[in-house]
Amino acid sequence: MSLDKRMSTWHMGRLWVTEWVSPKEAHMHGLEEIIYEGRTKYQHVLIARTFAFGKTLFLDGYVQSTELDEAIYHEALVHPAMLTHPSPRKVAIIGGGEGATLREVLKHRSVERVVMVDIDSELIELCKKFLPEWSKGAFDDPRVELIFSDGRRFIEETGEKFDVIILDLTDPAEGTPGIKLYTKEFYEAVYNALSEDGVAVTQATSIRYYLFAFTAIRNTLSKVFPKVRPYKIFIPAFLCEWGFMLASKSRDPLELSEEEIRERIRDLDLIFYDEEAHRFLFWIPKFVRKKMDEIDLVSTDSNPLIIY
Amino acid sequence: MSLDKRMSTWHMGRLWVTEWVSPKEAHMHGLEEIIYEGRTKYQHVLIARTFAFGKTLFLDGYVQSTELDEAIYHEALVHPAMLTHPSPRKVAIIGGGEGATLREVLKHRSVERVVMVDIDSELIELCKKFLPEWSKGAFDDPRVELIFSDGRRFIEETGEKFDVIILDLTDPAEGTPGIKLYTKEFYEAVYNALSEDGVAVTQATSIRYYLFAFTAIRNTLSKVFPKVRPYKIFIPAFLCEWGFMLASKSRDPLELSEEEIRERIRDLDLIFYDEEAHRFLFWIPKFVRKKMDEIDLVSTDSNPLIIY
Amino acid sequence: MSLDKRMSTWHMGRLWVTEWVSPKEAHMHGLEEIIYEGRTKYQHVLIARTFAFGKTLFLDGYVQSTELDEAIYHEALVHPAMLTHPSPRKVAIIGGGEGATLREVLKHRSVERVVMVDIDSELIELCKKFLPEWSKGAFDDPRVELIFSDGRRFIEETGEKFDVIILDLTDPAEGTPGIKLYTKEFYEAVYNALSEDGVAVTQATSIRYYLFAFTAIRNTLSKVFPKVRPYKIFIPAFLCEWGFMLASKSRDPLELSEEEIRERIRDLDLIFYDEEAHRFLFWIPKFVRKKMDEIDLVSTDSNPLIIY
Amino acid sequence: MSLDKRMSTWHMGRLWVTEWVSPKEAHMHGLEEIIYEGRTKYQHVLIARTFAFGKTLFLDGYVQSTELDEAIYHEALVHPAMLTHPSPRKVAIIGGGEGATLREVLKHRSVERVVMVDIDSELIELCKKFLPEWSKGAFDDPRVELIFSDGRRFIEETGEKFDVIILDLTDPAEGTPGIKLYTKEFYEAVYNALSEDGVAVTQATSIRYYLFAFTAIRNTLSKVFPKVRPYKIFIPAFLCEWGFMLASKSRDPLELSEEEIRERIRDLDLIFYDEEAHRFLFWIPKFVRKKMDEIDLVSTDSNPLIIY
Repeated sequence: MSLDKRMSTWHMGRLWVTEWVSPKEAHMHGLEEIIYEGRTKYQHVLIARTFAFGKTLFLDGYVQSTELDEAIYHEALVHPAMLTHPSPRKVAIIGGGEGATLREVLKHRSVERVVMVDIDSELIELCKKFLPEWSKGAFDDPRVELIFSDGRRFIEETGEKFDVIILDLTDPAEGTPGIKLYTKEFYEAVYNALSEDGVAVTQATSIRYYLFAFTAIRNTLSKVFPKVRPYKIFIPAFLCEWGFMLASKSRDPLELSEEEIRERIRDLDLIFYDEEAHRFLFWIPKFVRKKMDEIDLVSTDSNPLIIY
Repeated sequence: MSLDKRMSTWHMGRLWVTEWVSPKEAHMHGLEEIIYEGRTKYQHVLIARTFAFGKTLFLDGYVQSTELDEAIYHEALVHPAMLTHPSPRKVAIIGGGEGATLREVLKHRSVERVVMVDIDSELIELCKKFLPEWSKGAFDDPRVELIFSDGRRFIEETGEKFDVIILDLTDPAEGTPGIKLYTKEFYEAVYNALSEDGVAVTQATSIRYYLFAFTAIRNTLSKVFPKVRPYKIFIPAFLCEWGFMLASKSRDPLELSEEEIRERIRDLDLIFYDEEAHRFLFWIPKFVRKKMDEIDLVSTDSNPLIIY
Repeated sequence: MSLDKRMSTWHMGRLWVTEWVSPKEAHMHGLEEIIYEGRTKYQHVLIARTFAFGKTLFLDGYVQSTELDEAIYHEALVHPAMLTHPSPRKVAIIGGGEGATLREVLKHRSVERVVMVDIDSELIELCKKFLPEWSKGAFDDPRVELIFSDGRRFIEETGEKFDVIILDLTDPAEGTPGIKLYTKEFYEAVYNALSEDGVAVTQATSIRYYLFAFTAIRNTLSKVFPKVRPYKIFIPAFLCEWGFMLASKSRDPLELSEEEIRERIRDLDLIFYDEEAHRFLFWIPKFVRKKMDEIDLVSTDSNPLIIY
Repeated sequence: MSLDKRMSTWHMGRLWVTEWVSPKEAHMHGLEEIIYEGRTKYQHVLIARTFAFGKTLFLDGYVQSTELDEAIYHEALVHPAMLTHPSPRKVAIIGGGEGATLREVLKHRSVERVVMVDIDSELIELCKKFLPEWSKGAFDDPRVELIFSDGRRFIEETGEKFDVIILDLTDPAEGTPGIKLYTKEFYEAVYNALSEDGVAVTQATSIRYYLFAFTAIRNTLSKVFPKVRPYKIFIPAFLCEWGFMLASKSRDPLELSEEEIRERIRDLDLIFYDEEAHRFLFWIPKFVRKKMDEIDLVSTDSNPLIIY
């Protein structure tokens, strides 16, 4: 093969985002096109088209969601909690700037009102402009109230009661405000902001990279909620299985009948979530359960969980 | 961990293996130590300690198995097939140089004889010497016969009948002899080398990166076997869910009872596989099933499946 | 600087341009900020701030010039030729989109008219907008005529005679129009477009990476001009010594007196070029001279020099 | 072009050494073969064949010398000092484990005795075994005494006087013992260990990456020696111009006649160094001289120069 052929193949792949999983491991995403790069008041934002995942949102250098697989993440985050509540009318979303969590929530006919609270109004503007496929018009739905504010303060100060609260947050990384959205004190405020059969769900980091954090979130929620269920799903762009934690005041997601799930999602036009997926999401492999049993970390305001 | 520590470990991480997932995407593994690097007659071999996965075997530049998670791969490859057969006595393994597949097979008390056929005797010597944690003495078990030969020829020419045949192969990559171990003609020979209730299983590539190949393997096996079941599990070091394909003459793995599984693996000392895992392995998400329905590729000797 | 600081700056450096020197060697530039990314009709353009070199222009993925060291390149390209001519009044520049070559030419008081010919008008607009430090207003000088056209055609068709012609081109890379700007036929046209004591100069690729190309350019010019002088200078952002080739109808740059150089550049406000630099530019090390003696490649329209 | 072609090209290039120039800039060397990897008591050693530079020695992750260009480095380090002394008979080398500095010194007929002092005996054994092209038998020359010891202690305690002392050291990096081989107190000991017309030379780091260090070494030597001359040469594998510092008790290298140089190196079989090279080595560009004028750092035992 001639030299020229080899070089021209590589011609377009020279701009890369390198995600440092740790100082010892990294993933290189070849970029086809940069759509936006800049900084909001809160974070660095890169919107680019990667060769592997299509349009991709990077926050502070890490993949947040991608055209190829955002539906897996957002369906997994939203629907188990929405179905664990018998008939959610009022929903609060903390975070979720892309608008895809909102999109999934609004698919449920029972929903009358969604309050979405995100601190970063600039990010939301960027997502509306450059990632309209994520929100698919959700921001314009009359049931939605959008509040630009600190999520923790909102939850603590709102007098309103919600049926479902969805915590679509960045990880509790060192030096970021997200840290205070994973503590026992915050979860107590979440509990208080929920209605009688209320259900909360939070993203819960990577079970490959941060199993200690995933487990700490479970432990911490268990101090506050009677029923806590860890679950996970493989997200291609995250290169690992991603964790979630569902916390419920009364109903247990593991006791939902296949019939109820099938019935309630019938018209929702979902890509990945169905009654089978529901069951499988909650399976945690034996060796993971075993390692989780050895971690007793609980996150509190005075001694919070932090990911480095 | 203090910033100092992190920095100094970063300091030492300057030797990397870069795995090119595609010319547009790559994963960089920081190496702590190189244990062996060289070439056998058939492939390039690197045995190194990576920071993320411990001792790691790379063949032709790709992660083959790692200390951290080889048990997930090997348990997933071996046990579903071994249990689908009611009482396997004679087992053949094609490939599997590390000896870990052999190790898992030998855990089953019913096994009286295992024939392991690998073309690369140099690789097996390297694995014995540098990766003894993989085989854990399995090569010395008196039930084992080790044959250095072409796997396809062995299957075609052996007069023996096996209860289980395990195909622990490298991917059907361009220019490699593995290509002819994924074709309809080869699977016919496998069928003929199986006893009455015989079961075969093959690794079946990545369902993220090579869904077309995973599906082609299913399609091809389905031309030969009455029951074919795709399954998959997330392997951290592969950064994705890895596929397997189980083909059976009679029993269906989906119809095994939890009790039988629990009973038969009771003394096997497994890390990941149990009756719950068995069930969950076979779950294929909705959007994957849908994509698979659109692929009708069948691999034959004259038009074989090839991964580039 | 404290380890903390170092670590946190590492933290932000996750967006990289990887320049593939060859498929086996690459340089990774950490980016601080992306200023512009897009495609003109002729090439891919990235303007970014790298941590190492400040504002940087990448064309088709390769560093073209940087804030930190563009003056070294442009002074080395322009002044040896301008001084080899006794009093240049009319100058033509082919290429040179950033406007820095123009800036250096205009510093010479004797200059009455400069024609700059660049095929890529979009690139020039981008440089004017995003890299004004390069041109420093040169495009607005009344002595300048800017022509958007094919450089070869211009040189072949212009009736005008120039005292100095400066070829500030991209490399003759496979599949690019630059190839025809390095051939004997083109150099004959350059010769014809020069006045009696005319001098031409061309960038001449990397003497580390492409010594065969550097030498071929020398050989080719030597078929047309009586005096040809190779020279080079280390450019930090190019990671190597960069080559240039000066071709003259009469005066020899090696015979310029130190006094004349000192006198003529006295008011030019130069960063790197002076009478000492002039002498040292033309030094080619022994082992390089030796290798050049072994290369007899000449570039012609029918058999052009191409870099892969 | 077919996909298969592209991938196979990259097949062999997957093992890389990444040299971190800074946390924001790195160079990736594709490896063809690993020859040795391990740790001596003092440093990490990797000997590998890179695609770009052939056999290459990496110490603690940084290129130390390569088959392709070690002669440039070693000739530049050794010969200017050897010629600045009128007739060197006794020479000391501190460091220089590869044996190539020794090789160059021994080419001079006047030399009767060379003491080479290196702290790392294991490294020397590795170089003898794996890099014999570097030393070319020099370690077996009867004029050589090899001492495994701390270089600073040797210089301070030896009663012997040397005509030339060559400091072939690693950079004064944080946390390494090399720091104390760049201080005023050490240079005073070097002065005292030199004979009347004695000449010392030291490697002096990169003038691109560490100009402050290069200048500090000049400033420090100038506190001790009457004549100090900075010089530099481009080393391809270092991606930059590399600095050296010559310190002399009496003769000035800039005053050597071309005839003397030509005469004395006539039989030395050199690749790069000649009378022209001698002159050009000492040229420091205007903007570099200017920046050096602004740095007044002096390295002392109590406040030593350190590179991070």
